[in-house]
Amino acid sequence: MRDAYHEELDSIGDGLVEMARLVGSAIGRATTAMLDSDLKLAENVIEADQRVDELQHELEARAIALLARQQPVATDLRIVVTSLRMSADLERSGDLAQHVAKLARLRYPDRAVPSDLHATILEMGQLAQRLMAKAAEVIITKDVDLALQLEQDDDAMDLLHRTLFQHLMDDRWKHGIETAVDVTLLGRYYERFADHAVSVAKRVVYLVTGEHADELQVDVQPEIQAVSGAEGA
Amino acid sequence: MRDAYHEELDSIGDGLVEMARLVGSAIGRATTAMLDSDLKLAENVIEADQRVDELQHELEARAIALLARQQPVATDLRIVVTSLRMSADLERSGDLAQHVAKLARLRYPDRAVPSDLHATILEMGQLAQRLMAKAAEVIITKDVDLALQLEQDDDAMDLLHRTLFQHLMDDRWKHGIETAVDVTLLGRYYERFADHAVSVAKRVVYLVTGEHADELQVDVQPEIQAVSGAEGA
Repeated sequence: MRDAYHEELDSIGDGLVEMARLVGSAIGRATTAMLDSDLKLAENVIEADQRVDELQHELEARAIALLARQQPVATDLRIVVTSLRMSADLERSGDLAQHVAKLARLRYPDRAVPSDLHATILEMGQLAQRLMAKAAEVIITKDVDLALQLEQDDDAMDLLHRTLFQHLMDDRWKHGIETAVDVTLLGRYYERFADHAVSVAKRVVYLVTGEHADELQVDVQPEIQAVSGAEGA
Repeated sequence: MRDAYHEELDSIGDGLVEMARLVGSAIGRATTAMLDSDLKLAENVIEADQRVDELQHELEARAIALLARQQPVATDLRIVVTSLRMSADLERSGDLAQHVAKLARLRYPDRAVPSDLHATILEMGQLAQRLMAKAAEVIITKDVDLALQLEQDDDAMDLLHRTLFQHLMDDRWKHGIETAVDVTLLGRYYERFADHAVSVAKRVVYLVTGEHADELQVDVQPEIQAVSGAEGA
């Protein structure tokens, strides 16, 4: 049997996994709500984010209590501090899923996404959900190889984002400015969601290897680079 | 004379103030680079963000060392944990300033912002800089009233953001989709920058009062609400 101390550490890890599962589910459902213009589902996602926020508060309180009572050093200390960071990533991911759902609600009964972009947005939503599922898996297994896979998935997200922007910049764009603004923000939400999933995985790598996986750093503004052909933006 | 322990705590606070000053300066200069299409200044801002990232790493290392060596409890423990959070806000603010500068560089020698939006973007940049200066002041003085002021400043930012979106949605918009996308992203960068400044101030309130200043929570997606007239998005 594990001692109380390691049980507390484990329970922090469990909290992170639960948060990752909730926000992964949220981004998937928000995408469905958006594409189907499903108001009920959108409101459901919006309300459900409260649970993610609660989990973060609980996790923070538990981490601080553990620091105060057990005064961990070395690896255990790094685990606790890194967990706080991960919970912030996950909480923010929940906000981003909520943003997608709010856009669905705002445009209801219209659809924010024109039909020729449905497939791309659907893929972005599914990929975002998959990235977060893998991040949860990385928290559980501490599998560094799997963590590195997330980087490739994030490249796929960048490609999708690029596709989205190519549509926007196409002279044949006929959906007007409001939809262009919606699609721009949506693209940003999915991209940032993916960034946070990658960030969670990177933090696990840091815990396992002791090295900041800065080479895993995701590119910023790939959309704009891609569209304009500019390098190294 | 203060003991080594409190000197270490103070030095973490100093690091936060330095970060806040750097990112406040960065958003101001990035805005100038954007409005004047000043490539050199833009590149300067982009490079300077490295220092902010270094400061965050240093601060994190110092905080973890302090936790390991001094094993603070109660208030001191909360200060250290909250400092880690604040440094994450500030690091992210630096990224956002860098995004503005990168957009300036990308569009050079053109200007990303059409002349009829110059005044609004200039105000957003100045307000963002002022918000961050106040956040630095709040870290130094722990002045809760000043922290609450930031909320009002953030309302002003929301208003400016709304103005921006009204321009975008105006039927007379004549700057095309690319500029609409640029302006949408710019608006988002300034809004998020302001959110992080408010968040830093809120964390100080939490340290001083022991209460989460959730009523200070900034609105999400005010731009879209404002434009559409939807409530409670």
